[in-house]
Amino acid sequence: MPYVNIKITQDEATPEQKALLIRGVTDLLADVLDKNPATTVVTIDEVETDNWGINGESVTARRTRER
Amino acid sequence: MPYVNIKITQDEATPEQKALLIRGVTDLLADVLDKNPATTVVTIDEVETDNWGINGESVTARRTRER
Amino acid sequence: MPYVNIKITQDEATPEQKALLIRGVTDLLADVLDKNPATTVVTIDEVETDNWGINGESVTARRTRER
Amino acid sequence: MPYVNIKITQDEATPEQKALLIRGVTDLLADVLDKNPATTVVTIDEVETDNWGINGESVTARRTRER
Amino acid sequence: MPYVNIKITQDEATPEQKALLIRGVTDLLADVLDKNPATTVVTIDEVETDNWGINGESVTARRTRER
Amino acid sequence: MPYVNIKITQDEATPEQKALLIRGVTDLLADVLDKNPATTVVTIDEVETDNWGINGESVTARRTRER
Repeated sequence: MPYVNIKITQDEATPEQKALLIRGVTDLLADVLDKNPATTVVTIDEVETDNWGINGESVTARRTRER
Repeated sequence: MPYVNIKITQDEATPEQKALLIRGVTDLLADVLDKNPATTVVTIDEVETDNWGINGESVTARRTRER
Repeated sequence: MPYVNIKITQDEATPEQKALLIRGVTDLLADVLDKNPATTVVTIDEVETDNWGINGESVTARRTRER
Repeated sequence: MPYVNIKITQDEATPEQKALLIRGVTDLLADVLDKNPATTVVTIDEVETDNWGINGESVTARRTRER
Repeated sequence: MPYVNIKITQDEATPEQKALLIRGVTDLLADVLDKNPATTVVTIDEVETDNWGINGESVTARRTRER
Repeated sequence: MPYVNIKITQDEATPEQKALLIRGVTDLLADVLDKNPATTVVTIDEVETDNWGINGESVTARRTRER
């Protein structure tokens, strides 16, 4: 019954990549802790770049500066 | 001051049902732990079906398969 | 597959009360959203009173002041 | 490497205010715990008012009532 | 800068297994989304079995029943 | 009614420092968003260093290596 939450910034992952993340995390928990995939829950939060801060500034500001 | 977070997949709950969940959780905490409803916070996260995985696949894929 | 997280301050709930919270939340989701109890996950976080702040002070400080 | 999550109701903060929250939290962790801003992560969740409950009702209902 | 949180019940993972989970999740995010391991944060919450509910009962009760 | 969660590694903050974090975050939300301190909730999670990963390794391993 593990529960895994992945937070990434928005527009970074396609549906296919999100499927790979879900598959990969579920397999990892099965391999390492013998967890049953049928009860392994994975959720992905996609956070707007205005709403994600690193080094005291938003990712929006950081990417604008780095352009 | 309890804080409760409910995660469900998107488009599953109407505003009325969400109001029932908020009311129900608040009453439960008042009944069981004598918590003051005025400081009981409940948030509901509605997660896209691409972003919710169970049994190694997304809910989108699972529902498509089951149709 | 709902996932519910309940945060309360530490030493507030006995095992019996926690069982009532788990039962109550699961029944609520079954009643309101017809969710399957078998895949409804509930976790309870018990937070130390030094680590819970309200109105700018910790619960420890608040309770000491109110004694 | 602190990780801070701020939950507020939707449409309450402009990009500029969110930038101030990110800056403020990062500075606070640097000042109080000497944390490196470069590895301090802050995320802001903006929750719909239907999805935020206080005192057993949603913020939507509360604000409608108070108008 | 992804942030991943893994919740498992307590006493299920040794330090070595937790290290494998951290390594595995970080590699997965590097492989799938080309994320920089240096800024990928993984936290593991170990939840007491009284505090984890599935199918309306705590894991403690469930395991006692299944013994 | 903002809800703020701060995750730091264990044994990094004294009760006094945690009180400063609670005070600081509450004041920040009052200053920036005019939020009422009386309904601003702050929780601090202290995570064991085995349970916090950065750059694919646990903080325990990283600190041992850096000694």
